[in-house]
Amino acid sequence: VPDRVRRALSRPVIDHRGPEFSTLALDVLSGLKRLLGTAQPVAIYPSSGTGAWEAALANTLVPGETVLLCRNGHFATLWGALAERYGLRVERLEGDWRRPPDPDEVEKILRLDDAGAIKAVLLIHNETSTGVTADVCAVRRAVDAARHGALLLVDVISSLGSTWCEHDGWGADVTIGASQKGLMLPPGIGVNVIGPRALERSRAIRCRSGYWAWEAYVEANATGFFPYTPATSLLFGLQEALAMLREEGLDNVFDRHWRHASATRRAVEAWGLEVFCEDEAAFSPSLTAVLVPGTPGADELRRAALEQLNMPLGVGFGEFADRIFRIGHLGDLNDLMLCGVLAGVELSLARSGMAFNRGGVQAALDHLSHWSTVGSVARPSKQSAANSAAPKSPVQRE
Amino acid sequence: VPDRVRRALSRPVIDHRGPEFSTLALDVLSGLKRLLGTAQPVAIYPSSGTGAWEAALANTLVPGETVLLCRNGHFATLWGALAERYGLRVERLEGDWRRPPDPDEVEKILRLDDAGAIKAVLLIHNETSTGVTADVCAVRRAVDAARHGALLLVDVISSLGSTWCEHDGWGADVTIGASQKGLMLPPGIGVNVIGPRALERSRAIRCRSGYWAWEAYVEANATGFFPYTPATSLLFGLQEALAMLREEGLDNVFDRHWRHASATRRAVEAWGLEVFCEDEAAFSPSLTAVLVPGTPGADELRRAALEQLNMPLGVGFGEFADRIFRIGHLGDLNDLMLCGVLAGVELSLARSGMAFNRGGVQAALDHLSHWSTVGSVARPSKQSAANSAAPKSPVQRE
Amino acid sequence: VPDRVRRALSRPVIDHRGPEFSTLALDVLSGLKRLLGTAQPVAIYPSSGTGAWEAALANTLVPGETVLLCRNGHFATLWGALAERYGLRVERLEGDWRRPPDPDEVEKILRLDDAGAIKAVLLIHNETSTGVTADVCAVRRAVDAARHGALLLVDVISSLGSTWCEHDGWGADVTIGASQKGLMLPPGIGVNVIGPRALERSRAIRCRSGYWAWEAYVEANATGFFPYTPATSLLFGLQEALAMLREEGLDNVFDRHWRHASATRRAVEAWGLEVFCEDEAAFSPSLTAVLVPGTPGADELRRAALEQLNMPLGVGFGEFADRIFRIGHLGDLNDLMLCGVLAGVELSLARSGMAFNRGGVQAALDHLSHWSTVGSVARPSKQSAANSAAPKSPVQRE
Amino acid sequence: VPDRVRRALSRPVIDHRGPEFSTLALDVLSGLKRLLGTAQPVAIYPSSGTGAWEAALANTLVPGETVLLCRNGHFATLWGALAERYGLRVERLEGDWRRPPDPDEVEKILRLDDAGAIKAVLLIHNETSTGVTADVCAVRRAVDAARHGALLLVDVISSLGSTWCEHDGWGADVTIGASQKGLMLPPGIGVNVIGPRALERSRAIRCRSGYWAWEAYVEANATGFFPYTPATSLLFGLQEALAMLREEGLDNVFDRHWRHASATRRAVEAWGLEVFCEDEAAFSPSLTAVLVPGTPGADELRRAALEQLNMPLGVGFGEFADRIFRIGHLGDLNDLMLCGVLAGVELSLARSGMAFNRGGVQAALDHLSHWSTVGSVARPSKQSAANSAAPKSPVQRE
Repeated sequence: VPDRVRRALSRPVIDHRGPEFSTLALDVLSGLKRLLGTAQPVAIYPSSGTGAWEAALANTLVPGETVLLCRNGHFATLWGALAERYGLRVERLEGDWRRPPDPDEVEKILRLDDAGAIKAVLLIHNETSTGVTADVCAVRRAVDAARHGALLLVDVISSLGSTWCEHDGWGADVTIGASQKGLMLPPGIGVNVIGPRALERSRAIRCRSGYWAWEAYVEANATGFFPYTPATSLLFGLQEALAMLREEGLDNVFDRHWRHASATRRAVEAWGLEVFCEDEAAFSPSLTAVLVPGTPGADELRRAALEQLNMPLGVGFGEFADRIFRIGHLGDLNDLMLCGVLAGVELSLARSGMAFNRGGVQAALDHLSHWSTVGSVARPSKQSAANSAAPKSPVQRE
Repeated sequence: VPDRVRRALSRPVIDHRGPEFSTLALDVLSGLKRLLGTAQPVAIYPSSGTGAWEAALANTLVPGETVLLCRNGHFATLWGALAERYGLRVERLEGDWRRPPDPDEVEKILRLDDAGAIKAVLLIHNETSTGVTADVCAVRRAVDAARHGALLLVDVISSLGSTWCEHDGWGADVTIGASQKGLMLPPGIGVNVIGPRALERSRAIRCRSGYWAWEAYVEANATGFFPYTPATSLLFGLQEALAMLREEGLDNVFDRHWRHASATRRAVEAWGLEVFCEDEAAFSPSLTAVLVPGTPGADELRRAALEQLNMPLGVGFGEFADRIFRIGHLGDLNDLMLCGVLAGVELSLARSGMAFNRGGVQAALDHLSHWSTVGSVARPSKQSAANSAAPKSPVQRE
Repeated sequence: VPDRVRRALSRPVIDHRGPEFSTLALDVLSGLKRLLGTAQPVAIYPSSGTGAWEAALANTLVPGETVLLCRNGHFATLWGALAERYGLRVERLEGDWRRPPDPDEVEKILRLDDAGAIKAVLLIHNETSTGVTADVCAVRRAVDAARHGALLLVDVISSLGSTWCEHDGWGADVTIGASQKGLMLPPGIGVNVIGPRALERSRAIRCRSGYWAWEAYVEANATGFFPYTPATSLLFGLQEALAMLREEGLDNVFDRHWRHASATRRAVEAWGLEVFCEDEAAFSPSLTAVLVPGTPGADELRRAALEQLNMPLGVGFGEFADRIFRIGHLGDLNDLMLCGVLAGVELSLARSGMAFNRGGVQAALDHLSHWSTVGSVARPSKQSAANSAAPKSPVQRE
Repeated sequence: VPDRVRRALSRPVIDHRGPEFSTLALDVLSGLKRLLGTAQPVAIYPSSGTGAWEAALANTLVPGETVLLCRNGHFATLWGALAERYGLRVERLEGDWRRPPDPDEVEKILRLDDAGAIKAVLLIHNETSTGVTADVCAVRRAVDAARHGALLLVDVISSLGSTWCEHDGWGADVTIGASQKGLMLPPGIGVNVIGPRALERSRAIRCRSGYWAWEAYVEANATGFFPYTPATSLLFGLQEALAMLREEGLDNVFDRHWRHASATRRAVEAWGLEVFCEDEAAFSPSLTAVLVPGTPGADELRRAALEQLNMPLGVGFGEFADRIFRIGHLGDLNDLMLCGVLAGVELSLARSGMAFNRGGVQAALDHLSHWSTVGSVARPSKQSAANSAAPKSPVQRE
């Protein structure tokens, strides 16, 4: 959490029924929409990301209905469990965790669903457990190609603020975000972008939860007054974080993330380790999962990093628990801080006794240096949703 | 929000899976339990108070079931609406808004419910819209006297931190709190105390919401690790607020609130206005609603206070909208600040053109002065739940 | 120290040789000059007010020279001691501490000083120990009438930010300020306004202190780069405090102080106590010293206020030590806070056992109420230096 | 400035005449003494380091007297200018800026001063412009060997908090510090340690400056009440900074600085550049000055670092202006941040077009890795004053 944001968090709380609050809320909503690539209403909940998942489900689905879950990682698994708890039948498209969800498989399953039993497709844009990103546009096209009416629910919790999220451009029906990753805030805010078809469904089913119900939030988008007591201090922080992103320029912010992601992969290669994601076009802009050879495992590395450098490295999940460590490169990170992080990893690799080659930091640094010298480096067109065949976002970004 | 708490809010966020977080969480839980008078598990949600209401309903009730709502004010009305949205049948015990809910009526209704259709009684301890407090112990005794199995769900959102809340001593089944009133925090944290019968019910019905589900939080009470991403910065603030309450001593904190409430009533009387609450034993420790005679109404007064002094006065609700204004005297308020608040009301009364007698501030001050000179003033025994016939809390308070 | 200022104090420190610092410094200088009523250079020292006194002496006077000190209070006494320590001969014009310095006496003394031995007149604008303000314009006219070349050194440490300070309009040669009173900052910044005759003298004598030497600061007024390491975080705070004054408008700020000072006097009268200042035209805008009758003395009152209410009341000095207490009403104080302060005094009067009449707070409140109702109340023309015969300030105030 | 310290800076200001202040002041004084290796009184001024220089001169020397200045860098030059401005005759021992002051030369000059004209030796412990440290003990022994009575005034402004400063152990007479370097504070506090011989001199000459005069501060060391208004918020920050140093342990803090300094030198060597300091035993623990070959010069490098990375690199001075850049490695810096800083330098070297070899960061990292693996690396005994022949400090360090 950057210093500017933390200072904003400590501002005196204002009356959430007064005009000052309305100005704050409208400013935050407008900034969030720009970041989410949408002109649709946005609900801002005092909640975690899990709450934002539940809000999306509760507003669009009725217990007993079926959803198709693209299960390519641990967080998809959790979302599926939440959906089942809510009473949904969860059909899982089991994917290779080292690759993005396969749009062709989605299309195939939907084509087979003549009866239209599947009411929604649940897709995670940036799977935090694996560092693999999904091609949302391709999944959208798959649904369209199958001429299937399922809603498309997209989780951008760990990509929002790190790369282009294009709710309108993607043709998503609900986009789900949270405050604690690329938005550089403490946890406590969940977000739903409410597309027109999703809103229609929501009105039809009128969900049992008054807390998650979109309708009052849709009104709030016009007035700036929230249905229930909002988490005002987090909104102050969010306003500041959005201002920081705007000042740097989204293009620059996302370019920076891409640069850091690619530099991190150079480091991993130089260490002689393996990037978990096997599809180059699907590399995550915000984190890199690394596969370690054997003994000692990733837990030993994490222990060394935490004890010696007070640096937490992300854990692995499921069958990869001790085989993966994850390097986060998101939020308010500059080139120097990235080199610091990679230096920390290299120090910990040495300390943990793992077999590796020195020189990862230098490889990353040379890459950054090259980038800085030539100005920029071509990035895969997949990173920009605007290049896809999906309808372009009507939203103007600065 | 006191300065100390605001500085705590701006601390760097820590890893919510690390040992430092666990220490924080266990400390916060232990402090909250002391304040809530309970040894039972407590769930701490990233949510507003509305979310905490919903959590209590979702964990203990199934759509289609019936609840008895003691409707003595605006917030009770809102809670009832939320319950209906959730699918419950809401039987409303319509009370006089100027008096507390009538335990005899509760008993009567429950006695008539031979079939046990009523699954829960919904009670607001301190109705923020009216400044009237309910006698929770008496309602508990009414339920017991009717030999009825309904759960007792008690909202202490605006009394927590301002007076004794005795979940165990009251014999409540669920106690519902939030961060933004007497806990002196920004909004964003909702709380449920989970009594054993409520927990049992919760396990039986296994609610559809994974977000509100108590079971994972029950485990968190032992380990200090939360099921989903917690609102860490608010927890830092909560820890600091609990420390402030502990340092002052709960007895002193509650005595101070009682002193301020009674001084405020002296001011209202001196102004020749009427305290909305007609039952002396039910005066709220945290706010006083005042009835104004006629023209100009309370809205004009509020306008004057806001424009001239930037002092928001609480609005009236329902039929009393323009007839009531509310003075808050809760949180980190000392005698001087209370006199400042009352001075602001008196300045605004004059400015608004309302008929009133000068001298309210002086009357309050004389009361405070007397109190300060004699050391303390006897307060109604009703303020202390420990005096009731209900089972005493086993929790040691310092 | 207001919350906004405190948050500014915690900003990350910037390089004091970089362009960002220059922008900050020039902004602060421009705001300070507006507040000080001057177009002359201003030196901003990392120092206390004592340091700013010493800076003024060291730049304009050589040990062995004579100064005329208007000694009407404790702080004048301290300044005199500092001047003697510096090696100056201090001629003391012993004034009645309950009245302002007498310009006729100043004129008389200077007329007798044919030889021009007296090199400077030392005058405190607002004597913090007594709550009496000097008529700077009248003293200026007295010096001029005596056709004497002495420099006029004016201390505005406790009036700056509370009333008009008009270095240029007054015809002062050096004006001396500090951060911790009306500027609403923590201590740590001292200020000198450097008039042209004083600057000339400074160049001629070239003071021995490199730290206080004005010349480098005169350059800094053009470039925004300070000669030595500046107290950057305090400058951040000063920038914010100046912004607050500008936003409220100096007219409104000073009107507010005058309103609070006059309300405080109503309270003192109602208590049956005596305002120490006997000259109505010389009442301080920022504090009121009150004379107490006898036993118990002011110390007992202060003890009660501190122990019971944690409210420090200003001590008395010299022969009045136990006979005076002082009420500060400066800085970021609104009507409500003033009533709170006065309530605290009234509570402490009662607690201390002092003989007094109740009703002081109400008298102040009625005065504020009248003021607020009629819009404003005429204030003595003496408050505005622009009414004097002295040369008008060329500086535009907004 | 670390986050903890910045939050401390924003605490509400307390009454500097109350008991809370006294506790604060005594705690700060005790921590400072531990850090300065002394049991003598310490004066804490609201001032910059320049003010602390002036305070040391003004208390011990009278205009017209002679001092011997070891001039081995830019800051020594500035101190000399300040001394001359104060009226002292400054005899300059012109040293090689790439090496520490030569104790033998000091001894030689003092031996020649039969008349005892030289009243003080002015020595900078860690010359910030060059990254060369003086051997204070050796200079002390030189003075003693010459049987000369000159006082030894030592500036530790940029070494305090980064390495052992042993006022008592060194046998210094005055030790001069400031807040903005190793103490991790914003500028605004100057420090003098007052040895017994210096204090005696101070009493004899009774300096003209009341602001700098030690005597009142000597009393303050017993009571915790400061003679003039102190910079309270900076004292809050200082208290927190001292707590951080204590928690890490001085041994660990200084070891960390030494590790970072040696890693930085590995980077410089790997880049094929030259460390400015030619005497290995005199390497600075807190900064490294680097000599660049020719065209483009250091200014071009600094421009690249500032524009591209917002990273200020220290300027060169005098004849080395465009030939030197300086890397700071002091304060709250961990291994990761150091690698980040060095990465920034390497990126800027590439960007500036300077001839250099890649691999500096990796060399530093390998050094850190080795250090971390073997636990520690022997450091030159010169770093520890305790190894010298000088009298051991009686102060217990934890």
